[in-house]
Amino acid sequence: MINTLYLPELREALAQQNARELEEFCTTLHPARTAEFMEGLQPQEAWSVLKYADLETRAEIFRYLDEGVQEEIVEHGDRTAIAELLAEMPPDDRVDVLKDVSNRAVDELVPMLPLDERRATQRLYAYPEETAGALMTTEVAKLSEDLSVRQAIDEIQRQAEEQETVYYLYVVDEGDHLRGLVSARQLLAAMGRPDTPIKELMETEVIHVNAMDDQEAVAQMVERYDLLAIPVVDIEHRMLGIVTYDDVMDVVREEATEDAHRIAAVSPLEEGYLDTPLMTLSWKRGMWLMLLFVGALLTAFALGHYEHVLSAGSLTWLVMFVPLVISSGGNSGNQSATLIITALTTGDVALHDWARIVLREIAMGILLGSYLAAIGFLAALFMTPNVLSALVVPITLVLVVVAGTLCGSVLPLLFKRIGLDPALMSSPFVAGIIDIVGIVIYMNVALALVGV
Amino acid sequence: MINTLYLPELREALAQQNARELEEFCTTLHPARTAEFMEGLQPQEAWSVLKYADLETRAEIFRYLDEGVQEEIVEHGDRTAIAELLAEMPPDDRVDVLKDVSNRAVDELVPMLPLDERRATQRLYAYPEETAGALMTTEVAKLSEDLSVRQAIDEIQRQAEEQETVYYLYVVDEGDHLRGLVSARQLLAAMGRPDTPIKELMETEVIHVNAMDDQEAVAQMVERYDLLAIPVVDIEHRMLGIVTYDDVMDVVREEATEDAHRIAAVSPLEEGYLDTPLMTLSWKRGMWLMLLFVGALLTAFALGHYEHVLSAGSLTWLVMFVPLVISSGGNSGNQSATLIITALTTGDVALHDWARIVLREIAMGILLGSYLAAIGFLAALFMTPNVLSALVVPITLVLVVVAGTLCGSVLPLLFKRIGLDPALMSSPFVAGIIDIVGIVIYMNVALALVGV
Repeated sequence: MINTLYLPELREALAQQNARELEEFCTTLHPARTAEFMEGLQPQEAWSVLKYADLETRAEIFRYLDEGVQEEIVEHGDRTAIAELLAEMPPDDRVDVLKDVSNRAVDELVPMLPLDERRATQRLYAYPEETAGALMTTEVAKLSEDLSVRQAIDEIQRQAEEQETVYYLYVVDEGDHLRGLVSARQLLAAMGRPDTPIKELMETEVIHVNAMDDQEAVAQMVERYDLLAIPVVDIEHRMLGIVTYDDVMDVVREEATEDAHRIAAVSPLEEGYLDTPLMTLSWKRGMWLMLLFVGALLTAFALGHYEHVLSAGSLTWLVMFVPLVISSGGNSGNQSATLIITALTTGDVALHDWARIVLREIAMGILLGSYLAAIGFLAALFMTPNVLSALVVPITLVLVVVAGTLCGSVLPLLFKRIGLDPALMSSPFVAGIIDIVGIVIYMNVALALVGV
Repeated sequence: MINTLYLPELREALAQQNARELEEFCTTLHPARTAEFMEGLQPQEAWSVLKYADLETRAEIFRYLDEGVQEEIVEHGDRTAIAELLAEMPPDDRVDVLKDVSNRAVDELVPMLPLDERRATQRLYAYPEETAGALMTTEVAKLSEDLSVRQAIDEIQRQAEEQETVYYLYVVDEGDHLRGLVSARQLLAAMGRPDTPIKELMETEVIHVNAMDDQEAVAQMVERYDLLAIPVVDIEHRMLGIVTYDDVMDVVREEATEDAHRIAAVSPLEEGYLDTPLMTLSWKRGMWLMLLFVGALLTAFALGHYEHVLSAGSLTWLVMFVPLVISSGGNSGNQSATLIITALTTGDVALHDWARIVLREIAMGILLGSYLAAIGFLAALFMTPNVLSALVVPITLVLVVVAGTLCGSVLPLLFKRIGLDPALMSSPFVAGIIDIVGIVIYMNVALALVGV
């Protein structure tokens, strides 16, 4: 999706060092759009263009560049200019960039940051990935409890220049403990009563998260309460920073994509599909495929074990239904696993609902199995005139589909229970287990009904 | 996930008609949390509790109730009180509720709304589902071009009471055409220069969507540009409303879950997993399973067609590898389909990348197939001492895995191209096709290599 519309003009302006034109390019559009138009440039060319922008605009556009390009620029750009750029970025974005570059670059760049920025960087850097702490920004509009509406408005006017968002204002005491929340909207509405203490306006039941909370939990809170931002506190309720709605949207998108990939037995990609090197991708896919393959070898042994059933004169037709039987179990298990995994992610179901879920899935398996059994029975009668041996297929189908729904619902719950990602109990694994279980069920139903 | 903590107290307070306590319950917490504590109540009980809140709080809490409860209340509550409640809600939420209730209730309630609200409702009601128009709210802070900073601040102070968000202010001309955007932050920062015309402050390149744009496209714009809200315009660039970030988060979550369900061949659910009636769910799953089953019957015919290969003395062991061969193709196709579908959803790849995608997937198929072929060859040697016939397995695996990756990548692209949802080309379908293709490849490789 590279936009090549302006590339020739940009390159020409660079060659001519046409400062007026390059400056105009950097400032006219939304920074995200400017970044899009720069996508076709080499990292060093992009950096040369950015140098024509003022520092603030430069940092804004830089935020929207591809991660790979950001990395290249930070790694190879002039250290002083890069440190200046990093100092201008919001601390959370700065740390995201630093986490992608070499240790050498980090060790050289961080000491060049101003003291405040350096401290914020080191603090954020320390939080484990995918926690509220790693997601938050420390640039936040805080107000002291004792201010009046007028003073608060003066204060946010002052802060409006620097902070990422001034729409929620957090009220803290002298020990930096979170006391309350006033929205800019409330302050604006109260401008007619400028001497009202903000204590009287503020909400004191502030919804917050702890720094070590998982980012998925943070996203669920922000979504449920329709927040613009959520404050992050430490165990002593001291205000550390905020997570803003735009970072939450990224988390929602990222976690949904990761879940989908895990469900399909692909390890989550760090970069886009087309940006991931072929060998990396082949490994993220291949290791799961090989694991599944080794598991599937067991189906060969299972079939070998029952060879005497399959080779008994009148039952050879049974072998033709093997793929049908196991794919029915696999597909229904796949449906159950996906439904349970997505319901766990969105918070629709919780672990303590397990008994209801299992009962529902057993009932569902019987229903679905019966639908398929009806069709399967007709197909089997087509292969053999013997009603008793034709009955092997529908009976097997009901049992295999129940095994599928059960396996597809219980395994993700079990994984969640022992603290693993339920999406790891992905459809191919459920299908792999059902392949083997299905063959065993099929052959035993045949033995029981027809004997050999 | 019903919170039963306060239920006994609530029921007691209701029985005693304890107005003070019920009023306090309604106003102390965040409305979303209040709604959570009410989840265990019957709809009519919940409505009785809400009557103790002032109209504004009542509408706020009502927004967060479960859809089913909202529906019951609107359907059966006193018409006058319900019309009052609906009039207080933001127009987009009001229309969401009305879309869920009976036509009779809609026909009776809409005429009871005040004129402005009625018009807004009728206009929003007309947009097809999943478009920007259906998602937007018409309550938006608009400013005339001619205002100064001081006048604009006075104006938003006035509007802060009514509008859903006052953080972005849209500047329109006398014909309501969208001219520009000023953020509340910019206005606050400019309070020191109160006579500056807002024309000088406003951004004129306003990112916007059209009313008929798909909600997924709206979400992608809001995400890419980190917007709080995006204006919706008609074909003449007249401002119709805005879509706010919280509605966008819901869309992202909803579309991701729908995609995951479609990928697993489950028709998207309108309600949560546990709230969907068993028979509805069994139909949303069963129809796809039956379709897949009928397709899978072809595998039985395919195997029947090659019976002479499988029953040839030294080749009977081939049958044991059938599930292994087809599951390998299915799993790799499943991975490809999910990667392409999610990359299309997030905008990582577009249709015009098709050639690159197909080439990548062919290369990937060869790589992945080779990994599996290495293991498969060893397993086959274990079954037969004849190297030539053992070679059937690895050669088949490479071909089947390439068929899988090709099928898994091409089919979603094809569906997208003809205007269908690529997620419909779900993994089970890819796997179903590969089951048949896999058997045909397997048998033909055997015939070519060993003959019969």
